[in-house]
Formats: sequence, structure tokens, C-alpha cells
Amino acid sequence: MKIGIITVSDRASAGIYEDISGKAIIDTLNEYLISTWEEVYEVIPDEKEIIEATMIKMADELGCVLIVTTGGTGPAKRDVTPEATETVCDRMMPGFGELMRAVSLKYVPTAILSRQTAGLRNDTLIINLPGKPKSIRECLDAVFPAVPYCLDLMERDYMECNENIIKVFRPKK
Amino acid sequence: MKIGIITVSDRASAGIYEDISGKAIIDTLNEYLISTWEEVYEVIPDEKEIIEATMIKMADELGCVLIVTTGGTGPAKRDVTPEATETVCDRMMPGFGELMRAVSLKYVPTAILSRQTAGLRNDTLIINLPGKPKSIRECLDAVFPAVPYCLDLMERDYMECNENIIKVFRPKK
Amino acid sequence: MKIGIITVSDRASAGIYEDISGKAIIDTLNEYLISTWEEVYEVIPDEKEIIEATMIKMADELGCVLIVTTGGTGPAKRDVTPEATETVCDRMMPGFGELMRAVSLKYVPTAILSRQTAGLRNDTLIINLPGKPKSIRECLDAVFPAVPYCLDLMERDYMECNENIIKVFRPKK
Repeated sequence: MKIGIITVSDRASAGIYEDISGKAIIDTLNEYLISTWEEVYEVIPDEKEIIEATMIKMADELGCVLIVTTGGTGPAKRDVTPEATETVCDRMMPGFGELMRAVSLKYVPTAILSRQTAGLRNDTLIINLPGKPKSIRECLDAVFPAVPYCLDLMERDYMECNENIIKVFRPKK
Repeated sequence: MKIGIITVSDRASAGIYEDISGKAIIDTLNEYLISTWEEVYEVIPDEKEIIEATMIKMADELGCVLIVTTGGTGPAKRDVTPEATETVCDRMMPGFGELMRAVSLKYVPTAILSRQTAGLRNDTLIINLPGKPKSIRECLDAVFPAVPYCLDLMERDYMECNENIIKVFRPKK
Repeated sequence: MKIGIITVSDRASAGIYEDISGKAIIDTLNEYLISTWEEVYEVIPDEKEIIEATMIKMADELGCVLIVTTGGTGPAKRDVTPEATETVCDRMMPGFGELMRAVSLKYVPTAILSRQTAGLRNDTLIINLPGKPKSIRECLDAVFPAVPYCLDLMERDYMECNENIIKVFRPKK
């Protein structure tokens, strides 16, 4: 089961600073998942075409079941991750962004500036996360309980998680 | 006053199982409404073109004031009801989907997988509901208090409801 | 620092009644802001092309950092302010509409009929507000704490507010 992690950041991709956000996602997924998984990890600049090409490669060529991005979801001029996500997805999942913003709003009123979204490209789920490690964890803790069942409905891999870390929910049939 | 009920389901439309969801909507509307209304009910497969054609017929030819759908709002490959809704609507009403997901989230974390939306095709209001009867009722109970005033603003029929069942809200002028 | 205020109303623009909504926005901004600002105020009819042209002029020609609209966000036939906003914006900010509807829902269940949104046209932030002065204030009180930091991220003017009136939030670096 491959999972793509994309850090979208001009400065991290130029080596100006280390990418701690992408690594925070990988650490969190390692804590969550009991299932064996393989990471596909890239650090790229805030260029719409590059973000799209990276998502398409991870989804179509590498067969990732899930792609999570970090960065590029705010109102700064170079922030275009949600637009790239919408371009490559054939169907959007507005509930992810709504819940992540609602959760972040408990901590900071500037949570409404987060334009993050989620969607489906064929049978790959793509989720935008915020840029800061603390917010990443808050958002993943909020939405991840729904991810394994989402993959079930998409007829992808059965994802098992560590119940002590994250309470995954699968409705009884 | 005509109200359209569309059950979107490959299996129900093929007769593999009975459509209990569409019937749950009809039962709920019968409980809610004091105004005389006529149901226009169809069970159709998860085909975008068929969903769109059915909505267009109910809105443009039959003059339904309201169309409610059930099914096809999740992340499964065949789920395209929100996309069909967006195609036929000229204006979207994001507040319906937001509230329905927020309400369902109180019961299950997988509520964020519901991609349901609502919108306006000329002077017809179209609302996507989830597939399961229990969730249908929770969602209708949440959004229906706003429906009669919505029809007022759209200059359609005056819809009267049973106050003991559903507390409709019309702001004082 | 220029701020645009657009009242979208067929009747107010025809002089049938006075525009109290636009004036309520101006009064509120005068209460909020310590920074010197200049208002650019227009009352226009519910015509999509006119709304778009007015927003474009205020953003591109007059250099407004912020444009707030009132009116035209409901389900009535002539209500097209969100559609005009989406047309002129290159990137949308869904968190504003979500929060404004959630806040208004505490007062009236018909809050879900509000289709208001927000977005960015280059480096101008455009926010739709509801039509009624009471709802305008509720919504501005909810979203304005995030506006100054939004302008920071957009590399626009530093906006200072009166802390006794509105608690602006800027994350520590």
C-alpha cells in the first residue's frame, strides 16, 4: 500500500530550510498504521503544474491509495495547492476541508484562511493538510478516522490502524 | 405542489433490492407537510446523464418546487449524484451540505465522506440526501426548517408544515 | 488603505429605499479600524456583470486591499453576488462562508440559505456579507479577526484594529 506525501514549499524545495512538515506527516502515519505501507515522498515548489504532475504521477503511475499534501493552502500569492488538487480530481470531498477548518478554529481564528480541500482522482484519495506540524497533527487526528472506510468504499487496500492512537470507524453492514 | 424524489442506486433500479430510502423520504415528507403535495418518484441507476435528465425533467417539465435525491454521494466509483446536481444547477447552496455533514458528524466520523450538496435550477431547489434511512431523517430534520422560507424567497408555493413534527422558520418582515 | 463596500440591491440602487446595509458595514469598519482607511462605496443593482465590473474596478484600478459586499447572497431569482465573486476571483476562501453560516445558524435555521463566499482576486480579498445589518455585524465579528493576518500573508497593508472592539489574531512567528 503506497501513500504519497507531498511537501509544497518554495523554500523547503530550494533547500533553504529542512522540510519538517512532510516528516511530521510520515511520523504520524507510522504511528497510526499497523498495515504495511510504503512512502512516496516529494518536496516540490509552489508551482501549480509541478504539484499537478506530482499528484498525477503518484496516483496514476505509482498507484498510491492516498496522497497527503502539506503547504500552499493559504492566501499568499504563491499558495495554489487547493487549485492544483481541484484540477487533478474528478470528484471533490468538501467534508474534509470543512472539518479541518472547524477543528483548527478551536485554536486560532485564522483557521478560516486555510483553503485546504480533498478529492478523488479515480481511486486515489488526495487530502490537503496545513503547513505547520502542530496543525497537521490536529487535522489528521480529526479526519483520519474516516480514511480507512473511505478506501473500503473505493475498493482499495484494507487499512488497519493502531486503536490506541487513532479510533478508526467502519460502520457495521 | 410537486416534489420530486429520486433514488439513485444501481441495485435498487435493477430490482436487486427494494428502495427503502426513497420511501423513507416520502414518509418523512408526509409527516412534515400539511400542504397538499404530489410526489414524483423515480428510481434510477448511478449514471450521471440519467440523473441529470431526471432532474431536468422534474424541474423544467413537471415543475417540481423541490427535488430530493438519495444515494450516490459517497466516494465509491459509481457515486456521481453531487456532480450531476452541480451540472444541472445554475447556483449552488453550500450551506445544506455543510449542515448535513456537521449533523451526521455527531453520530459517525465517516460523515465527512458524504459529498452531498444542494443547489437551484431556475426556481427548483435540489437537495442531495445520504443513502441510509436513519441518516436521511437526521439530515432532513436539520435542513427542512429552512426549506419553506427558501421557497418563499424563490416565489414558489407557500409550504405549510406540521409544527409538532418540524419547526419551520420564517423570519418576520 | 482603500476598502471597497458594495451594496448589491435592485431597490436600494433605484433609490426605492435607503441603503442601511452598506452604511452598517462602514460604521462597523470605523469602529474596528485604528489604521487610516479610505472607503470606496457603491450601491448597484443585482446584475452579475455590474457586480463583476465594480469588483474589478475596485481591485485592479483603485487598489482596494479588501472589498466587502452586502446583498444578493440568497436563493431569490436575482441573487447572484456569490457567482459574480467566484467569476472575478482566481482563488476561493471557503472558510469564510462556512464560518459565517455556522455563526448565523445559532440565531436562525435559515442561515443555510445564505450562499455567501469569499475569495482572492490577485492581492485583493473579497468577502460577501449577508443583507441585514444585524447579520452583517454577527458575520463581521466572526471573520474579521482573521482579516489583518490575511492581508499580512498577501503582503498588503498592515491593518491595526481597536482591541476593545475586535480581537485580531496574528500568530507568533
